[in-house]
Amino acid sequence: MSLIVQKFGGTSVGSVERIEAVADKVSGFVDAGHQVVVVVSAMSGQTNKLIALANEIMDTPTPREMDVLVSTGEQVTTALLAMALHKRGRKAKSYNGSQVRILTDDSHMKARIREIDDHKIRADLDSGHVVIVAGFQGVDENGNITTLGRGGSDTTGVALAAALKADECQIYTDVDGVYTTDPRVVDSARRLEKITFEEMLEMASLGSKVLQIRSVEFAGKYKVPLRVLSSFKDGPGTLITVEDESEMEAPAVAGIAFNRDEAKVTVLGVPDEPGVAYNVLGPVSEANIEVDVIVQNVAEDDTTDITFTVHRNDLKRAEDIVRASAQSLGAREVKTDGKIAKVSIVGVGMRSHAGIAATMFRALSEVGVNIQLITTSEIKISVVIDEKFLELAVRTLHSAFGLDSTDEE
Amino acid sequence: MSLIVQKFGGTSVGSVERIEAVADKVSGFVDAGHQVVVVVSAMSGQTNKLIALANEIMDTPTPREMDVLVSTGEQVTTALLAMALHKRGRKAKSYNGSQVRILTDDSHMKARIREIDDHKIRADLDSGHVVIVAGFQGVDENGNITTLGRGGSDTTGVALAAALKADECQIYTDVDGVYTTDPRVVDSARRLEKITFEEMLEMASLGSKVLQIRSVEFAGKYKVPLRVLSSFKDGPGTLITVEDESEMEAPAVAGIAFNRDEAKVTVLGVPDEPGVAYNVLGPVSEANIEVDVIVQNVAEDDTTDITFTVHRNDLKRAEDIVRASAQSLGAREVKTDGKIAKVSIVGVGMRSHAGIAATMFRALSEVGVNIQLITTSEIKISVVIDEKFLELAVRTLHSAFGLDSTDEE
Repeated sequence: MSLIVQKFGGTSVGSVERIEAVADKVSGFVDAGHQVVVVVSAMSGQTNKLIALANEIMDTPTPREMDVLVSTGEQVTTALLAMALHKRGRKAKSYNGSQVRILTDDSHMKARIREIDDHKIRADLDSGHVVIVAGFQGVDENGNITTLGRGGSDTTGVALAAALKADECQIYTDVDGVYTTDPRVVDSARRLEKITFEEMLEMASLGSKVLQIRSVEFAGKYKVPLRVLSSFKDGPGTLITVEDESEMEAPAVAGIAFNRDEAKVTVLGVPDEPGVAYNVLGPVSEANIEVDVIVQNVAEDDTTDITFTVHRNDLKRAEDIVRASAQSLGAREVKTDGKIAKVSIVGVGMRSHAGIAATMFRALSEVGVNIQLITTSEIKISVVIDEKFLELAVRTLHSAFGLDSTDEE
Repeated sequence: MSLIVQKFGGTSVGSVERIEAVADKVSGFVDAGHQVVVVVSAMSGQTNKLIALANEIMDTPTPREMDVLVSTGEQVTTALLAMALHKRGRKAKSYNGSQVRILTDDSHMKARIREIDDHKIRADLDSGHVVIVAGFQGVDENGNITTLGRGGSDTTGVALAAALKADECQIYTDVDGVYTTDPRVVDSARRLEKITFEEMLEMASLGSKVLQIRSVEFAGKYKVPLRVLSSFKDGPGTLITVEDESEMEAPAVAGIAFNRDEAKVTVLGVPDEPGVAYNVLGPVSEANIEVDVIVQNVAEDDTTDITFTVHRNDLKRAEDIVRASAQSLGAREVKTDGKIAKVSIVGVGMRSHAGIAATMFRALSEVGVNIQLITTSEIKISVVIDEKFLELAVRTLHSAFGLDSTDEE
């Protein structure tokens, strides 16, 4: 018998039929002898409906009251799922964040979990109940309702699994696992049996939107084995674990991530003095524009070039800011490009395998893809290329690193 | 400055526009220097939608989970009203039943309030907040969400007013007060300035569905001045108070109530022995059929006749039960009549005024209305008549007891 925390998102509980299907799935785990804690989101669309009501009243509704409002969505799902389990002859009990209680700080709409009181849940599990907990919400020290921000139900699931020392935290989504890359771009993309937390973090932040980044960080920190599965079809999904050092034969590259939401700003010929990067990027960040890749190269003659990428929606604002500061910095020129894409290879195996970068660059050059920028981290290499080469680059790299599925699979 | 508790029902908060109107009304009271606690119901239709979801899963959903489900409706309204007040520059804070906390027993779906913790509310009022409380809900000793049953928001309002020793509890509805009788039946029906709790109880139980009976009982018990007003138009409404003994000139009859939902069952010629009434009515009540009027008359020759009324929907079941027991009791005959109406005159003044009953019977006989049954209580006389005479009887009595409005009013 093991203790499993299962999280079902909005689509998975989007109708009474879907909730009944979740009840069937949960029942299966109970039949197999497991103790089950289920974390649920609001039925899909509900949260948006509630937000729309609030926006009819105010453009920027009071955060405390927004939390009171939207937290009702998950509570509705918990009650319906409990009923569906009762209908199947199961003992089940629902809890909202305040009842558990899931203590958070008092940052409404983006609260962080501080502490989970597990005694009610343990007592219910011991008396044979399935425990259903409203995701995404908690309560601060003064009893005010808080929410963890959108997608926060994943975090609730992981935090509960950590508090209960669960054997596994299963996140049910509309995909059946984490893939080596986007199957819509590469036909031969494969579902990964396993991926490490670090790889998952890089994949997630690069646009593989399977899991909320925060919940992966959280799971990694507390070493909660996390499994991504489909709530619509059966299958083992992908297990996200602490790296298993014994697997020496693990492939060097776990997956190919990509992103075409970004635009590039380059400042050419800036006098190369201390503080140049700050002088260029400071005003951008003060304008609350998020900067992703930053590359600085030393050019000839005491000047340097700085390139950075921002979300395409922010390009015009970023350009205006940089043009203004470029003048005072004595920069030669400012160039922008809205038609770029970023492609990354991700894998903890890179640490111990030489020549990964060389393989990447060679593969791209062989198919004529010009690399505009390169950045690297310990387990990731990213290149920025012309947007039109994106699909070609992803397919080429997927194949070059042996990720294509074989006929047997 | 006085402390006012205001309760707004589902129709009064049925849309964002209506909630904005409530915010305007509440703001007016704040401007006039009052401290205001607002109790709200779910937006009209919401509770039924939630119940429909539950019924898609189960015909008889688990009571604990029903409470978890439906209590979200009021919580949504509290948040939206708080936002609407914020938009108007008011300080306002919402609370659900568990946050207040409103402690109840653990009878899900029909819980009774045990205790209200008023310290958060008082602190918020003292710091200039409008406090908004979700009606209809509470929490038991173990933190389980409970509800007071449908219409329970009135009870929440009265209970809060009692706990806070409020100067007045205002119940906003879709009518502008309590009338001497139904204005749809009698054109000259008048809004009452005042009515006593006892009269209101009799009026309410007889079909003037302005207020939930329980909340009136509660208000009477704790001597909370209760005012019924319209949330759609301005006006003083009707004040429901403890009887003012000094008003000797108060009219004998406060209003005429009526009801045409009932049907009559008569058992004729039952041997007159101890336990007859129980033997006839016991099986009916065991079948969970609610009995209203019961009249027993001693007839000639050691037999008696028993007549009682039930809701028309229950007539067939009641008849079957009584026919079965009538045989074993040796009764002569069982008769039923589904076309009856009950008309009552209500007023605390009856206690001190002689001849009220005589006036009633004479007035009815003068217009040819035959009386089938008569029952009396200290402040009420009810007659059961043929349904077709209902409007005639109500109009006749309204006029006979001087309740018709005059041109001046």
